[in-house]
Amino acid sequence: MEDIIVRFIEKPELRRPIFVEGLPGVGNVGKLAAEHLVDQLKAKKFAEIYSKHFPPQVLVRDSGTVRLVSNELYYIKREEPLRDVVILTGDYQGLTPDGQYELSDKILEIARDLGVKEIFTLGGYGLGRMIEKPRVLGAATSEELVEKMKGFGVTFSKGEPGSGIVGASGLLLGLGMLHDVDCVCLMGETSGYFVDPKAAQAVLEVLSRILDVKVDFSDLEDKAEQIDLITSKLKEQEPQAEPSKEDLGYIG
Amino acid sequence: MEDIIVRFIEKPELRRPIFVEGLPGVGNVGKLAAEHLVDQLKAKKFAEIYSKHFPPQVLVRDSGTVRLVSNELYYIKREEPLRDVVILTGDYQGLTPDGQYELSDKILEIARDLGVKEIFTLGGYGLGRMIEKPRVLGAATSEELVEKMKGFGVTFSKGEPGSGIVGASGLLLGLGMLHDVDCVCLMGETSGYFVDPKAAQAVLEVLSRILDVKVDFSDLEDKAEQIDLITSKLKEQEPQAEPSKEDLGYIG
Amino acid sequence: MEDIIVRFIEKPELRRPIFVEGLPGVGNVGKLAAEHLVDQLKAKKFAEIYSKHFPPQVLVRDSGTVRLVSNELYYIKREEPLRDVVILTGDYQGLTPDGQYELSDKILEIARDLGVKEIFTLGGYGLGRMIEKPRVLGAATSEELVEKMKGFGVTFSKGEPGSGIVGASGLLLGLGMLHDVDCVCLMGETSGYFVDPKAAQAVLEVLSRILDVKVDFSDLEDKAEQIDLITSKLKEQEPQAEPSKEDLGYIG
Amino acid sequence: MEDIIVRFIEKPELRRPIFVEGLPGVGNVGKLAAEHLVDQLKAKKFAEIYSKHFPPQVLVRDSGTVRLVSNELYYIKREEPLRDVVILTGDYQGLTPDGQYELSDKILEIARDLGVKEIFTLGGYGLGRMIEKPRVLGAATSEELVEKMKGFGVTFSKGEPGSGIVGASGLLLGLGMLHDVDCVCLMGETSGYFVDPKAAQAVLEVLSRILDVKVDFSDLEDKAEQIDLITSKLKEQEPQAEPSKEDLGYIG
Repeated sequence: MEDIIVRFIEKPELRRPIFVEGLPGVGNVGKLAAEHLVDQLKAKKFAEIYSKHFPPQVLVRDSGTVRLVSNELYYIKREEPLRDVVILTGDYQGLTPDGQYELSDKILEIARDLGVKEIFTLGGYGLGRMIEKPRVLGAATSEELVEKMKGFGVTFSKGEPGSGIVGASGLLLGLGMLHDVDCVCLMGETSGYFVDPKAAQAVLEVLSRILDVKVDFSDLEDKAEQIDLITSKLKEQEPQAEPSKEDLGYIG
Repeated sequence: MEDIIVRFIEKPELRRPIFVEGLPGVGNVGKLAAEHLVDQLKAKKFAEIYSKHFPPQVLVRDSGTVRLVSNELYYIKREEPLRDVVILTGDYQGLTPDGQYELSDKILEIARDLGVKEIFTLGGYGLGRMIEKPRVLGAATSEELVEKMKGFGVTFSKGEPGSGIVGASGLLLGLGMLHDVDCVCLMGETSGYFVDPKAAQAVLEVLSRILDVKVDFSDLEDKAEQIDLITSKLKEQEPQAEPSKEDLGYIG
Repeated sequence: MEDIIVRFIEKPELRRPIFVEGLPGVGNVGKLAAEHLVDQLKAKKFAEIYSKHFPPQVLVRDSGTVRLVSNELYYIKREEPLRDVVILTGDYQGLTPDGQYELSDKILEIARDLGVKEIFTLGGYGLGRMIEKPRVLGAATSEELVEKMKGFGVTFSKGEPGSGIVGASGLLLGLGMLHDVDCVCLMGETSGYFVDPKAAQAVLEVLSRILDVKVDFSDLEDKAEQIDLITSKLKEQEPQAEPSKEDLGYIG
Repeated sequence: MEDIIVRFIEKPELRRPIFVEGLPGVGNVGKLAAEHLVDQLKAKKFAEIYSKHFPPQVLVRDSGTVRLVSNELYYIKREEPLRDVVILTGDYQGLTPDGQYELSDKILEIARDLGVKEIFTLGGYGLGRMIEKPRVLGAATSEELVEKMKGFGVTFSKGEPGSGIVGASGLLLGLGMLHDVDCVCLMGETSGYFVDPKAAQAVLEVLSRILDVKVDFSDLEDKAEQIDLITSKLKEQEPQAEPSKEDLGYIG
């Protein structure tokens, strides 16, 4: 079989498209943000990506039907501004380092075929401690982009993240550079202990300004409240377990 | 060498064949069921599958002769109903995730070449606790199939299995869907602590109704009694060890 | 680079050659036996095998010069009986299961090109306890070979080795069968705790009768005495550590 | 994507070039030495190597811009002596054994295309104990080279390193031999507990005599003092942790 199978439902004609990636990672920040964007903008799925670099697994829906684990591509057509948006999200990242390279390279190829010249990758920045007001840290493929992003409220902090950016959110930048694609990674600060809708909201607030879209955050706020409820209960019951060092600083 | 070597002993002409898979997994339910079916229906081996995705190992027979670890394909020709049956069983599943994808893809290719349009995969559903009367849970590639299976006594339970279906029993469904093959996974509830002939029998009772075959279960009942004897002795001697979480919810 | 690099020093013309394999494994029995045979028969090296399936490592000789880890092929020409012998030994087996398949398949290809129709693989059979008089257990590709081997003092014992034969000593049999090569595995019983020259001698005593060669065992006996000395000292000093279950029953 | 991507910034014409490798490893000795040489000789970067055998990671510069993890090639043109120098350093070695083989093979191909006939690989020799005056141990591809290196103060010590040389520093020698390239590995003795600029200096002192270049060591001496300060503080605070055996004897 092919290592990566791309099934196009539709091949959309896009105008100056901006690409947004949000896959599972620290605090699930990137995936939460991307999925919320898909919901809010009523984005349309146009492709499914299957791969032997993903786990050998199907997921079972409530109806009893199954679907093979995948990544998925969505698009939104817009007139004002006249720039369409492509969103990538999915169940998993590649299981192995070389699988991650293969997948990011293939995604980049698809993006370039769609005419994408700008990529935003979304992730969490694990702090290893609870955080009240998460900042959105950035990294980019050029100094011009860094300056531009500062104007949107993105924080660029020397030495953060010290261990670099691992996974698709990093690779799309690294491989994108080799093809002269402008790329920015937006990382919402998170404890890294829980799924973190608050960090996802912080990232999306910045991204919605960049994309010039309106996003309603009430769903994410509800989820954040539920998480807060659970964590506050846990705090009462038992002392917080220390996360392993590996969990921290990893960016999805 | 080829990654997967298929050695055909015979290339049977089959009529509207139904494909049944049962490989090692949780409680060895799938393999037990498939092997019992091979015995009961006097199925004929027609192909052996060798692969570098299996362990580098030969097994030694009581006669002192060896055989390379493999998967094996059997068939049964039937007049009433006029639908033949293909059964896949074997020593191992692929050792790596991508090996599992490669093997399931190859098996699906063989099945399609034989004219297969319906696949049943058999496995165990690990509960992590002893179970008196195992139900047979199902998952399928379409809602029509879900409804049809309910008629055969298969239980479809929202959120079960919550972690999806891993391994060949899942992949054949997931990859089968991409080729418009109708697939159902039948999972016998099992503790997951032991080889579980009782769960295999539960699965086969459902499958025999679906296939419209008569199966004598006395062999499986004998095996179940032996297991019961061992487990009841173990219970007397020492407190039951907790299974690792990884063992649970996994489906072969 | 090629996955496996075979460098021929010479391409010998061999007469009805018998192939003998002895690579590292349990008790290092196979490698000790094969190396002793090379020494005793003054076998001539004719090929070196390098591979990315081996560790990324060079070994340093006493002279300060290095050599890349490898497997090596030797031959012996004989008039009486008119059957030449090929011996394979080396530093390592493949690091991964699929690497082991690739290497055994390549070695089999070389053997078949040399006209080999009979293969003997040598290894240890780990008992997990000290053994005074090691037996030589066997496994073979046909019942005729089993009977023939019994005549040379090889023991065929129902259920031993229960977990099969892992690694090159097993794979050469398993893959050899697919090419109709007659193969026998000879396994010297060993504790599996130490390098075991005594088990290697037991294996070679049987093999020398099969090959009809004279072998002087004084070197192996010296090594065995040294090991005995060390182990008896260890016994005095501290209670014997339990080997992990994984170490037992593995055959090189 | 290609497994290894080589991006040439420039294709220099070099005169009888000598190749020097220094990648991360024990005590980071090789990388420290190679980077110091690049700085001191104002070597010019002419190629970048990206690979799916490296971690899927970008590093973030203080400016907020990113770069994909890589290995890098530098050159120095010299009139006196009329021998140019190529230096390889980088962020990582290959993650897997076969990735290391692939990378070393590719690097060797590049070196040979540049006309390289002599390679020096730099690394640390982990002792597992603190060392006051590190020696520089050697290994080479011929006895002539061993003798020549002794004249430059390199120590060749029987049985050291007993476990051979692992990684690029070993593989370049092992694979280089297959192409008749003269190769020497220089290993600075180090505890293996810390990044070790002192061992890097010892290696560079020898190498600078071989290459006939002048190197100022004040930067490395400053770094060594900082490390000494940290380690002496650690000694006061707590007993030194035992390094795992795996950390010792490994050569980058």
